[in-house]
Amino acid sequence: MVRESEIRPGEVAIDPPAGTDAGLTFIGRIHTPWTSRLEAPRQGRLDGPICRLEIFPPWVPALAGLEKFTSVEILYWLHLSRRDLILQSPANNGTVHGTFSLRSPVRPNPIGTSLARLVGIEGNIVSVRGLDCLDGTPLIDIKPDRCQFTPLAPPQAGDFQTEA
Amino acid sequence: MVRESEIRPGEVAIDPPAGTDAGLTFIGRIHTPWTSRLEAPRQGRLDGPICRLEIFPPWVPALAGLEKFTSVEILYWLHLSRRDLILQSPANNGTVHGTFSLRSPVRPNPIGTSLARLVGIEGNIVSVRGLDCLDGTPLIDIKPDRCQFTPLAPPQAGDFQTEA
Repeated sequence: MVRESEIRPGEVAIDPPAGTDAGLTFIGRIHTPWTSRLEAPRQGRLDGPICRLEIFPPWVPALAGLEKFTSVEILYWLHLSRRDLILQSPANNGTVHGTFSLRSPVRPNPIGTSLARLVGIEGNIVSVRGLDCLDGTPLIDIKPDRCQFTPLAPPQAGDFQTEA
Repeated sequence: MVRESEIRPGEVAIDPPAGTDAGLTFIGRIHTPWTSRLEAPRQGRLDGPICRLEIFPPWVPALAGLEKFTSVEILYWLHLSRRDLILQSPANNGTVHGTFSLRSPVRPNPIGTSLARLVGIEGNIVSVRGLDCLDGTPLIDIKPDRCQFTPLAPPQAGDFQTEA
């Protein structure tokens, strides 16, 4: 039942715009136990296997200070995903759902986000638990979990702006 | 003290790789009350002003089903940010931090992520609270909050894989 780039009954594909509005730089590569889309988890779990983020130069010094956090947000590029479906049938049963109402890897910009548990950092390798992606997935970004991070820059007017 | 693309004492810039590893399609535009980097909030708040996500064709039908969720993850492109700093000084006080230990907009792939509260959907406009970005920011993706979403596809072996 796993998607291997097929179109299923009821699904709707569009002719997608070229992906040229902005360009990404892969900052590393993710090593996981999963080499097949038939086996990878649907969603990561914090008691799952350790996965390793290999950081490419020149970005390794940008890891400084990450070790203070226990929970980190990981962004990665789902390089095998098609990008042209607007309605999808995850269960392949004829019922379709809008792409933006799903966390499917199939989306106009196939970026996966996970909140992972930081296990350790050694040199250019960051070890985490909680990922769900295939071995070899390109890494886009690492950030502290927003709930653990307090901005270090001085506050600005917008920080205090509320509205009924 | 806000960053206007300057380099501050202690900060380190590298010669960044070309952003050509993958390409993004802007799926819409975000309308917010903030037109200056001097005023935008450092982080969004769920009792903040309503912001509107304008969805471009051909992606509007992909919103179907999003209305079932109260909390949505928004990805956007921080189009004014420089991408070449590996060490940053958010407080501009000489103390520097690795880029990946910050939620600064300045990063190799300047993608902002927010968990926002869904207020409503009308046609191609999605109204939310909780954003922090400038008016006119390009929209990359909308997903249900992972805590509210249960995969609709059948489980796979990886879903049950744990490790001590």
